[in-house]
Amino acid sequence: MAKLAMIAFGGNALLRAGQKGTFEEQTENVTRTCAQLGHLIERGYNIVIGHGNGPQVGNELLRQEAGSKEFGLPAMPMDFCGAETQGSIAYLIETGMDKVAAGRKVISIVTRVEVRADDPAFLNPTKFVGPYYKECPLDGATYKEDPRGLGWRKVVPSPRPIGINNIDVVEKLAREGAIVITVGGGGIPVVRTPEGLKGIEAVIDKDLASALAAVTMKADEFYILTDVPKVYINFRKPGEEALDTITVACAKELLEQGQFAEGSMAPKVRAAIMFVENGGKQCIITEAGELENPACGTRIIP
Amino acid sequence: MAKLAMIAFGGNALLRAGQKGTFEEQTENVTRTCAQLGHLIERGYNIVIGHGNGPQVGNELLRQEAGSKEFGLPAMPMDFCGAETQGSIAYLIETGMDKVAAGRKVISIVTRVEVRADDPAFLNPTKFVGPYYKECPLDGATYKEDPRGLGWRKVVPSPRPIGINNIDVVEKLAREGAIVITVGGGGIPVVRTPEGLKGIEAVIDKDLASALAAVTMKADEFYILTDVPKVYINFRKPGEEALDTITVACAKELLEQGQFAEGSMAPKVRAAIMFVENGGKQCIITEAGELENPACGTRIIP
Repeated sequence: MAKLAMIAFGGNALLRAGQKGTFEEQTENVTRTCAQLGHLIERGYNIVIGHGNGPQVGNELLRQEAGSKEFGLPAMPMDFCGAETQGSIAYLIETGMDKVAAGRKVISIVTRVEVRADDPAFLNPTKFVGPYYKECPLDGATYKEDPRGLGWRKVVPSPRPIGINNIDVVEKLAREGAIVITVGGGGIPVVRTPEGLKGIEAVIDKDLASALAAVTMKADEFYILTDVPKVYINFRKPGEEALDTITVACAKELLEQGQFAEGSMAPKVRAAIMFVENGGKQCIITEAGELENPACGTRIIP
Repeated sequence: MAKLAMIAFGGNALLRAGQKGTFEEQTENVTRTCAQLGHLIERGYNIVIGHGNGPQVGNELLRQEAGSKEFGLPAMPMDFCGAETQGSIAYLIETGMDKVAAGRKVISIVTRVEVRADDPAFLNPTKFVGPYYKECPLDGATYKEDPRGLGWRKVVPSPRPIGINNIDVVEKLAREGAIVITVGGGGIPVVRTPEGLKGIEAVIDKDLASALAAVTMKADEFYILTDVPKVYINFRKPGEEALDTITVACAKELLEQGQFAEGSMAPKVRAAIMFVENGGKQCIITEAGELENPACGTRIIP
């Protein structure tokens, strides 16, 4: 049976820092990322793709603000805007994946992801969204400084995903050979109520949502694509060292030492730990350009 | 085997004329429409839903304009905005259908729909999109007067759909009992190129896209939901008469007589004809509130 790989990549694989995010720019970026995923298809993997939406939902939130100011249009909540980006980013990825799909279907599923209404995250917003500002805006929302020093960014609650709607359908389609796109932007956050699943304003970490998808589907491998080829200790400091293979225990220790920046590498390492602690064989953190090398990236193993 | 019903409803089943389109309004509207679809579920039908996005994509186009003016954000093309509304409207419909799904899965597929690059529609825009204006805006785009006298509206090309991506997947999921949402806004329009399917700025008529979906899946019945219980001749004129059952030949004759308004009932009757002429048993044009009566609406038969 073909191996199943879950692949998560960031919204910045589509809209890079410094770009305005035109349709042409995003199409070019996604085409490049998808071309690299082609290496996994050539190696016979079944594939499920999860993706971020940070820059895209940030732009959409600005458009909501502008539309309200200019035309009196109602500003839609964050869950609704997240759903919008699931549609538009899936469209871009489908176009990109078609070129390397080698006859396989490419299918995008709009995905709601369940969180707990009493998740403590609702009391402490931590997830960076939207554009960077040179100074902290004073508009009532919560802003924090980007850990890499790129500026100030809005933060929203980031509750833990506890269940992924229709993940059984995603798995079945993928195991039949389709390339399936799901949990866009970490999924549309919903809470369970007596009246059914109900949307809530939050952003679920896309790496954690993808990890939960990978665990639930019993994926063989979980790839977290980022903008560096490996995970580093002492990143951009004296003694910087790239990691090849580390155990979960080691990853946890490094995490505790504060080796990985919050809002950047730390959530990726946490998602990797979550996958491997729940039955996954290995999680690979790397950049898309490295995928042609089967031994690429940093591997987190049991 | 359970009967398969394709159901198409307009974006105005979610965002009614005169409403601003807040999240709460759209949620309330879609919940009401979905509750009516529950009657078909009770009668044991398998169900595929296609939906429009006119008011929603209109608002999104305004937000794009405002975001460009206010924040210098790039305005995204119409196909991208259509993809956005597939995500957001699917999310609303999923929430509404969950309440009547009686344990069935509700699955939304982002859907690209193929059109011909040389479709003559690209030379003659006819599809109304976005808000109504009291006077014709002079911004370079093409505007026409609404046939019902509601004002001026932007018109864009409306090429014929010739193929629906992943419709085989949609059919399989629906015949297994899932409620499947597809061809949102008529589908994301794409043309076939040597490099694969490529997006193009246009709006595919959602009734025609749904008719093509119904034909391709060999659906037993095709419901077109609108804001009147039946199709009328001499609509809102002396001699107005509701039609119960008409043959395709009769429908064609009435269409030729100009009995049905362009941009309103005429495309629905054309979609009905397309379905029945290509093997469909009957197309029912009615409003959602009538669905509890199994003999509702106007039926177009061979």
